Amino acid sequence: MSQITTIDRVGQFVGQMVTIRGWLYNKRSSGKIRFLLIRDGTGIIQSVIVKNEVAPEVFSATDILTQESSLEVDATVRADARAPGGYELQVSDMRVIQVAEDYPISPKEHGPSFLLDNRHLWLRSSKQHAILRIRSHVIQEAQAYFNREGFILFDAPILTPTACEGTSTLFETDYFYGEKAYLSQSGQLYAEAGAMAFGKVYTLGPTFRAEKSKTRRHLTEFWMLEPEVAFAELEDILLLAEELVCHLVNSVLTYRSEELKVLDRDVTKLQSVVRPFPRITYDQALDILREKGISHHWGDDFGATEDTIISEQFDRPVMITHYPVQTKAFYMKGDPLKPNLALCVDVLAPEGYGEIIGGSQREDDYDKLVERLEQHNLPREAFEWYLDLRRYGSVPHSGFGLGIERTIGWICGIKHLRETIPFPRLLQRIYP
Amino acid sequence: MSQITTIDRVGQFVGQMVTIRGWLYNKRSSGKIRFLLIRDGTGIIQSVIVKNEVAPEVFSATDILTQESSLEVDATVRADARAPGGYELQVSDMRVIQVAEDYPISPKEHGPSFLLDNRHLWLRSSKQHAILRIRSHVIQEAQAYFNREGFILFDAPILTPTACEGTSTLFETDYFYGEKAYLSQSGQLYAEAGAMAFGKVYTLGPTFRAEKSKTRRHLTEFWMLEPEVAFAELEDILLLAEELVCHLVNSVLTYRSEELKVLDRDVTKLQSVVRPFPRITYDQALDILREKGISHHWGDDFGATEDTIISEQFDRPVMITHYPVQTKAFYMKGDPLKPNLALCVDVLAPEGYGEIIGGSQREDDYDKLVERLEQHNLPREAFEWYLDLRRYGSVPHSGFGLGIERTIGWICGIKHLRETIPFPRLLQRIYP
Repeated sequence: MSQITTIDRVGQFVGQMVTIRGWLYNKRSSGKIRFLLIRDGTGIIQSVIVKNEVAPEVFSATDILTQESSLEVDATVRADARAPGGYELQVSDMRVIQVAEDYPISPKEHGPSFLLDNRHLWLRSSKQHAILRIRSHVIQEAQAYFNREGFILFDAPILTPTACEGTSTLFETDYFYGEKAYLSQSGQLYAEAGAMAFGKVYTLGPTFRAEKSKTRRHLTEFWMLEPEVAFAELEDILLLAEELVCHLVNSVLTYRSEELKVLDRDVTKLQSVVRPFPRITYDQALDILREKGISHHWGDDFGATEDTIISEQFDRPVMITHYPVQTKAFYMKGDPLKPNLALCVDVLAPEGYGEIIGGSQREDDYDKLVERLEQHNLPREAFEWYLDLRRYGSVPHSGFGLGIERTIGWICGIKHLRETIPFPRLLQRIYP
Repeated sequence: MSQITTIDRVGQFVGQMVTIRGWLYNKRSSGKIRFLLIRDGTGIIQSVIVKNEVAPEVFSATDILTQESSLEVDATVRADARAPGGYELQVSDMRVIQVAEDYPISPKEHGPSFLLDNRHLWLRSSKQHAILRIRSHVIQEAQAYFNREGFILFDAPILTPTACEGTSTLFETDYFYGEKAYLSQSGQLYAEAGAMAFGKVYTLGPTFRAEKSKTRRHLTEFWMLEPEVAFAELEDILLLAEELVCHLVNSVLTYRSEELKVLDRDVTKLQSVVRPFPRITYDQALDILREKGISHHWGDDFGATEDTIISEQFDRPVMITHYPVQTKAFYMKGDPLKPNLALCVDVLAPEGYGEIIGGSQREDDYDKLVERLEQHNLPREAFEWYLDLRRYGSVPHSGFGLGIERTIGWICGIKHLRETIPFPRLLQRIYP
């Protein structure tokens, strides 16, 4: 039997016989020739079957092959500049594994509800395939980046006894002996304990919001990457965020250019993502909105509309700092010079893709943190452990959370987050 | 100001002035000299303060420093073969950031309940620190391994509409509009959809079991690494499991030897973990038990006692295959030659650390899978999407799940899983 390989590696076997195992993506025929497009998860390749060059039963089997039928071919690899990947297969034998039933997803347009019902199959389509390969790449690159920079991966718990930022949007479950547990909205508070132990940590995991919002920018379950750094001030994590985002975009441009092509992504938009990112304060952002004729009440957070208008002024992500403290979470440190402003940052992706990063310097003063808990009506006893981090060797520290799906959506040029995760969880969607 | 660096990097600055920021781990004094052990998350270093070489207020400040006080020192790096890391700091200046309150964790023995209550601080202790650095390393190495081997990271959902292996031990939560959701016990079924789209995928994420078991081998929330491979049979994933485990153990031996020393781990036990692993069938395992005077009913799964006895016969992980189908999950493929046996594998760590891997070839035949669902009383409509994977291009495929905490426990030589994850969730423990 010939060498079993995958489509992404056929270039190593030009002129040689290989075995490829995969699924029928498409087929067409022309007289005594059949052209099978085979996909195997690593790529798609055209496979040519000529009537007189294979056994009669092999040739006739091509007639019964339906889309997504599984099969194995023995074939010679030919370099062909006209072929999509640069190679083509000249088939000498074929074994059909299963003739698929009528495949529900055809090249014709389907509505999102139908496609989401068939998400387990929709994943095989070239666009979804490209998005999720980029997702995998971005997550692995982010981890490799943190690893190189001396960060420790520090998994935060999902089942938590309290809410990190209030209790309004939490999934609740019964724990044992009458206790309740809540699904984590952020690993940050735990990551802070990690930063005090390891200096630099990051968490990567699913987070949950039981928000009744039905927008293209919200999932009820989404992944967050949250670095937390001891002895870091706001400025330090601005630099970290900038460097991380540039690294991820650059890595996708370099290693996932084929996928960006499939997605028809305008790569010039990504190529302009270089340091330094523009930095504006909340007040300067208000000025921009005012110039655009939008009046915004000082002290209110920005919504999708404001984010879009602001981000459209720049060709790369913009970092907005110094929001009014009242718009932000209890744990953010106030600016010592202007205590009504938080030492925080939101990073907005360009082209209106919204907020991809939220971060801050954390309040490291015990008394001020107690005060903030009271102002936010948070139950102090649930945060005693968190206050301990300010009792025993408190240090300045900062961190941020990068939303994986928002980041993938932006890099891929996908407006709706439902396509940026294998099995999206939406307000009305928990199946499959 | 001098170069800010971390303890793991001082070797690059011998004879030079550096600034180190960290926490006081311990101190002692000898006449006009103070010895401060400083930790910064990357290591611990002895810092020498000589009375006549620093300002008087710096020297006297050492008297008020308590354990875990935060501080910054400017110091010259000296190579010193007698020092634990090979280097020592000669301090010229020190800035105290915070004098810590009386630290609750002292070198004296504390009970597990007290330590778990203070998990956010316990993390700073050298043993916990070592375990979690190894955890971080193992997870990152596993991902790098899969990345190199062409696997796509494929995040499975946590909120699921049904149970993967039955409904008895699930955490339930209200979804929207009266729907229920369950926390995933395994990403496998979703990973199978991924394997049909990408060929080779793996999931890495938290999984949940609401089991009322109070043993040292169970957590209610634990992390699983689950590769799933299209066109792979049982034999293929036996090889994959073997290679992965050897790679991880070897990598820890190479890159985390200091941590293994802190843990007093007998590394000779880890050095014997080389391929091939012994393979025995369930029936052969019964023979071993019988020789040891243990009678075991054919058809029952093994418990902790059996696992321990069997694993103690070998100096490396043992792979037990071909369990009776009735002991195993519905999705496992039966052996074509002996249909009452499953094409499955459990990998037991040596030294009685229990099962670290469970895997199988999956049932790829539509009719047989329908039959298995019925036998297991599973609601067919919830698995329609899963059945689709057998309707549209079904292929032989296999995968396994590696329990992160079990694996870390074994490598570190830690008997209780509560120390193998930053914030363990146990039957009676959800705080902090």
